Amino acid sequence: MPALVLQDGRLALRADHPRPEPASGEALIRPTRMGVCATDLELCKGYMGFDGVLGHEFVGLVEAVADKAHDDWIGRRVVGEINCVCGACDLCKAGLRTHCRDRTVLGIAGRDGCFAEALALPVANLHEVPDNVDDDHAVFTEPLAAALQVVRQLKIEGRPFITVLGDGRLGLLCAQVLAKLNATVRVVGKHEPKLRLCEKWNIPARPLADVGLRKDQDVVVDTTGSASGLTTAMQMVRPRGTIVLKTTVAPGEEQPDLSPLVIDEINLIGSRCGPFREAVQVLSAGEVDVTSLITRRMKLADGIDVLRAANAPGALKVLLEP
Amino acid sequence: MPALVLQDGRLALRADHPRPEPASGEALIRPTRMGVCATDLELCKGYMGFDGVLGHEFVGLVEAVADKAHDDWIGRRVVGEINCVCGACDLCKAGLRTHCRDRTVLGIAGRDGCFAEALALPVANLHEVPDNVDDDHAVFTEPLAAALQVVRQLKIEGRPFITVLGDGRLGLLCAQVLAKLNATVRVVGKHEPKLRLCEKWNIPARPLADVGLRKDQDVVVDTTGSASGLTTAMQMVRPRGTIVLKTTVAPGEEQPDLSPLVIDEINLIGSRCGPFREAVQVLSAGEVDVTSLITRRMKLADGIDVLRAANAPGALKVLLEP
Repeated sequence: MPALVLQDGRLALRADHPRPEPASGEALIRPTRMGVCATDLELCKGYMGFDGVLGHEFVGLVEAVADKAHDDWIGRRVVGEINCVCGACDLCKAGLRTHCRDRTVLGIAGRDGCFAEALALPVANLHEVPDNVDDDHAVFTEPLAAALQVVRQLKIEGRPFITVLGDGRLGLLCAQVLAKLNATVRVVGKHEPKLRLCEKWNIPARPLADVGLRKDQDVVVDTTGSASGLTTAMQMVRPRGTIVLKTTVAPGEEQPDLSPLVIDEINLIGSRCGPFREAVQVLSAGEVDVTSLITRRMKLADGIDVLRAANAPGALKVLLEP
Repeated sequence: MPALVLQDGRLALRADHPRPEPASGEALIRPTRMGVCATDLELCKGYMGFDGVLGHEFVGLVEAVADKAHDDWIGRRVVGEINCVCGACDLCKAGLRTHCRDRTVLGIAGRDGCFAEALALPVANLHEVPDNVDDDHAVFTEPLAAALQVVRQLKIEGRPFITVLGDGRLGLLCAQVLAKLNATVRVVGKHEPKLRLCEKWNIPARPLADVGLRKDQDVVVDTTGSASGLTTAMQMVRPRGTIVLKTTVAPGEEQPDLSPLVIDEINLIGSRCGPFREAVQVLSAGEVDVTSLITRRMKLADGIDVLRAANAPGALKVLLEP
C-alpha cells in the first residue's frame, strides 16, 4: 500500500509498504483525514530514532478487526489514542497507561503510523466520532487532547496571568482552551498572521519583540517547539511560577542554561498526551475553533512535500487526504 | 582588612580590602566560623559573574549596628539570611522575599560575603543562635535551611520512594532531613567514604554504578552540582514523578536533553534558599548530624587553598576560622 515512510533519517513515499495485519485486540483503520504535527518534523530530524510509517493524527473508518467480539466496530468512524499499552506493567496498573513501560506509539515509537492507506490500533484505543463532528474537526482530536492536558496539570488559583509562548498549531489550541479558565491569557509569538487569528477568539496576542521579559507571569506554556523557548519562558515567569513544557526537540540542538529554574524556584511541568474523550466532547460542543487552523490540504500522494508544507513559514495545520 | 576576593574570575587573599560600613538597618558582624559551599566553587568558574568577597555561610558576633534602635543586637552570636531584600517590590509584598527583584545576596550577587574579617547584613536577616548550638553546628544553618526547603516544596503522599542523587555536603543534609518523612529514602553517589557516612544515620546508600536506572523513583533530589545529574535524575524518576533541582552550574557546561521531561511528564522543581529559623531549631534539637560532615578546618589566611581543599576528592565541609 502507499505510505510515507521514514527510514534511517530519510522520508519517502513508498508504493509497496506492507499493509498492516491487525493483531489480536486490534482494528484495521482506513484514515480519511490526517494531520501533520511538529513532532513529525522532529522525527524526521532524528528525534526518538524512529523508523516506520510517519503520522499519528487521523480520523478514519474501521475496516476490519482481528477478533469476532469486536465486529461491531466495523464501519464506525473513529479517532484513536496513540499510546498502545500492555495493561500489565506497574505504570499501567497505577493508572498511568499513557506511560506504559512496554508501549508502542503510533507513528512515533515501534509502530507504523497513519500516513498510509491503512493503520492498525487496538480497539481499546478507539473513540467513535459523533455525527456532528466532521472529519476536518475530528482530525484535531489528538492535538486538542494534548492542549487539554495542560489544563489537567495546572492548578488555577486566584486569576493567574498565563502566557502561551508560541503561535503554532499547538499554541493556538492551548490558548483557546486556557482562555476558558478563570485566568488572564495571552499568546506571545513571532508570526503576525497567526497572532491575528487570536483576535477572532478575543485572546490578546503580541509579538515576542514587543513584550517585556519581566518575570511577571504566573504560568508560561512553552509550545514553541524550539529549545530557545524554555529560555524565554524562564525570563517571563515569575519566581515560584510554573512553566508547562510542551516542546520536545531533536537531540543536538543547543539546550538552555537551567540555573534560572533553581534561582527562581520555578516549577517546570512536562506535558505530553491528553484525554481523547474530553477532546471529542469539546469538538462536539463547538467550544474551540479548529478550522481556522487549517492552512493547506494535500494528498498522501504528495509525499515528502507534505512535510515541507508543514514546515513552511506561516503554515499552521496541513491536512492530508488519502 | 583581610578578605578572600573574587575579581574578574581570579580569587586572591587581599590584606587591605575595605572594611564594610553598615548602612542604615544593617549590622557589622565578625564571623567566627565560615563554611565553603559548592556555589563558591561555581562562582569562581564564572557563575553569576560575581565580583567581591566570597562566602555566604557563617556564624559570628555582632560588633556594631548602624542604628541606635538596634543596639541590643551588639554582642549577640548570630547567623544571617543571605538575601538582602527591598521589602517594597511586588515579590516582597507577595511574601516571596527571597526572590526580591532588587535583592543583593551575600557573597553571591552585589554584596561582599563573609570570607573576611567582617561583613555587613541587615539586622532583619539575623537569627540569634541558642547557647546549645556551638559554632561548628551553627555554621551549617544556611545549607541546612536549603535542605529543609526541599521538604517544604514536596508533597509527601503515601510512602514515596525518594532518591537523593549526590553524596556531597548538600546531598547528605537533604538525605538526613528527608529520612524523617514518611518515605523510603536512599542516597546514590560516587564516593564510597561519603556513602558510608549514611550508615551511621541508617540511610541506605549505594554507588551510582550499582543502581539500576529504572524510572521507578517517585522523587529524585539532584544535589550533584553537575549538569549530568539531571540526566541521571530523569533516568531514575518514574513518569509523572518529581525531580527537585538543587544544582546550579556555571554557564558553558553541556546541558542535558530535556525531552524526557516532556515524554515522562515529569514535574521539575527548582529549589534554592530555605527557612533559617527552622534550621536553627533543627540544629538546637540535635536532629541532624552535621559534625560528621566536617572534613577539614582551615584559616582565612590560607587564602585560595581553602577553595582547593573544598574541591578535593573526598572533601565534604571545609570550615574556616578567622
